Amino acid sequence: MAIPFEIAPLDDGVTAPWGFTAAGVTAGLKASGRPDLAIVATDTPVTAAAVLTTNQVKAAPVVVTAEHLAASGGRARAVLLNAGSANACTGLEGLATAREACDLVAHHLGCDAHEVLICSTGVIGVPIDRPAYLAGIPKVVAAAAPEGGADAAEAIMTTDLVAKEAAVHVTDAEGGSATVGGMCKGSGMIAPTMATMLCVVTTDAPLEGEEAAAILRRATDRTFNRISVDGVMSTNDTIVLLASGTAVTPPDADAVEAGITAVLGDLATQVVRDGEGAQRLVRITVRGALAEDDALAVARQVGTDDLVKTAVAGGDPNWGRIIAAVGASPVLIDPGSVDIAVGDVTVCTGGMAAPFDRAAAEAVMAADEVQVTIDLGLGDAEATFLTCDLTHGYITINAEYTT
Amino acid sequence: MAIPFEIAPLDDGVTAPWGFTAAGVTAGLKASGRPDLAIVATDTPVTAAAVLTTNQVKAAPVVVTAEHLAASGGRARAVLLNAGSANACTGLEGLATAREACDLVAHHLGCDAHEVLICSTGVIGVPIDRPAYLAGIPKVVAAAAPEGGADAAEAIMTTDLVAKEAAVHVTDAEGGSATVGGMCKGSGMIAPTMATMLCVVTTDAPLEGEEAAAILRRATDRTFNRISVDGVMSTNDTIVLLASGTAVTPPDADAVEAGITAVLGDLATQVVRDGEGAQRLVRITVRGALAEDDALAVARQVGTDDLVKTAVAGGDPNWGRIIAAVGASPVLIDPGSVDIAVGDVTVCTGGMAAPFDRAAAEAVMAADEVQVTIDLGLGDAEATFLTCDLTHGYITINAEYTT
Repeated sequence: MAIPFEIAPLDDGVTAPWGFTAAGVTAGLKASGRPDLAIVATDTPVTAAAVLTTNQVKAAPVVVTAEHLAASGGRARAVLLNAGSANACTGLEGLATAREACDLVAHHLGCDAHEVLICSTGVIGVPIDRPAYLAGIPKVVAAAAPEGGADAAEAIMTTDLVAKEAAVHVTDAEGGSATVGGMCKGSGMIAPTMATMLCVVTTDAPLEGEEAAAILRRATDRTFNRISVDGVMSTNDTIVLLASGTAVTPPDADAVEAGITAVLGDLATQVVRDGEGAQRLVRITVRGALAEDDALAVARQVGTDDLVKTAVAGGDPNWGRIIAAVGASPVLIDPGSVDIAVGDVTVCTGGMAAPFDRAAAEAVMAADEVQVTIDLGLGDAEATFLTCDLTHGYITINAEYTT
Repeated sequence: MAIPFEIAPLDDGVTAPWGFTAAGVTAGLKASGRPDLAIVATDTPVTAAAVLTTNQVKAAPVVVTAEHLAASGGRARAVLLNAGSANACTGLEGLATAREACDLVAHHLGCDAHEVLICSTGVIGVPIDRPAYLAGIPKVVAAAAPEGGADAAEAIMTTDLVAKEAAVHVTDAEGGSATVGGMCKGSGMIAPTMATMLCVVTTDAPLEGEEAAAILRRATDRTFNRISVDGVMSTNDTIVLLASGTAVTPPDADAVEAGITAVLGDLATQVVRDGEGAQRLVRITVRGALAEDDALAVARQVGTDDLVKTAVAGGDPNWGRIIAAVGASPVLIDPGSVDIAVGDVTVCTGGMAAPFDRAAAEAVMAADEVQVTIDLGLGDAEATFLTCDLTHGYITINAEYTT
């Protein structure tokens, strides 16, 4: 079978596709005085879709973004993002401030307020500094530029150690092509069966509203919904997709979806690698399942198990903890047909200890990336879940600071 | 309403009720050379019931205990318990060793092998040292004595820092009375919607088989199934109830159940207090729910949230993390009607920050026991879940040793 499309990575971010501008400025919301207000904008309204937190406690910006997408029929001119305050559990006042911020962006861009989407991240329950926030908006709108992607990615960082950007150029078999770019933040409060913290993904491919929403949902399910740092679901998680349709010879929809999935997958991997206190990225691959959903459920159970995650922190190929997590999942398994390998080293066969070279297994566990493969021996389906180790660093970050 | 019965705590353990003997000896299964083999026994067969792990990966002793209870119709003469090896994921050989151990106990007691129940705890996947294990059995049977409860409780410890015993004397309104005693071990791999690690509870009250099983199930649901140290489900969890019926003027069944629930509740609290690395016991009480199951589900979500548990470790009254966990639970809530207090200090009202004395809240969080009360404002049902803080100690214990 011929490859239906090619995906080439670009060293770029949310402004990689033509027609998108971005900026990051300091509004004074972070105590550190670092940049904390970002925007991603376009010159004309573009197709927009979002995946929002399923937490019942929703931050004001999550509520406003949902309202605006509904009112605009999936069109947007800009996404305003801030770090330093989550604007969550802040009541009607927080909601009014989020709406006021969108009004102000709309005023400066000359568009409808419904065409402005909004995201916040920071401590829950602390009112956002309204004067500083609103005063920053004219600044960030004025600063928006085609080369502003990196500044925007930096301004949304909280406990992140690195800014997270990704971009690809995708070409289909007929020569049609498009660019996809993205940025995100996230390090703790990263949860299974959920989106991420904040993420904006842009493309110059043309997408209709429903199509954009469906592609974003599927791409999220295959990327951000398959990672965990600490299994904790946030009140603010938002992924926004903006599709400008400015590509001259756009590729087919499958190629666009592959490009969006590639960018989200790259960003999701960066989030886990930068997980609070993380020393190691762990890929949990479950094979031999009867269905992909089964494989994913088992991989998620293993990838969110604190004893597995501490064993990885200690570089210990402790397969007993892994198989105990496999057995605790809701998926029906046959313990006697389970094989487990770390890297290339099989440590468990048929549910029992395999004779293995302990030094080789420990070498696998000591690397920056650890592959754990679990074969259920039941069928042909498989799935991979990304997690990180649970270390003293996570405790230090979350026990010693209000985050 | 008159109090239907009185429960008086006793400074005793599994041999508190008349007719039970116990012992703990060193068979050589623990590398430390500490006592590792225990027995609880009776002179004649008594009513027996067990709650066993729901993990699909079941250790050999769990399989054998289930078989023996089925074969005996819920009668037993003894429970054999060891630490130093879980005898889990050890295949047919492990199963044969567990059966052989029961045969040997039965031989020395002069009873049927089906009347011997068996429990193991230790590292998963490591074959049990069969010669040492079997050689210890005549020793432990010979040592069994009415004053051996404390030795038995000590011999089943693994990462536990303290041996765990509890006992009560229960008297009903008519003057009928019985004694209930118990012991357990458990510190890590302590999971929600599950039993504990290993626990034996004894009583001189007369109970029929089905009645004993139903009482044990209900008492477990109200105690061990409402605690968590790390949300990890073990392959070996077992609670055994032995009821000798030797009480001369036994109380009514409700009083017996209350006594058993009191002993299990006491032991469950000891497990959380001795949770790996735990500095603080946390009681999460959810009030104002529409149903007790709803209250419990919300309390469980909060009590197993790593960000809540690290906030407690840091003495931080971070209610934003608590309400985010409330919203992440599957129970339908109204975020705007949620109140949260730590101790007597209300920190959140109507889903928003309450003005509160930060020093007072921090004093509450700095105590050995922290009460968190969440009022959902929807109904009258409530439930309490016990957990502990997540500290550097947990990481040290689980990242630096194979457990």
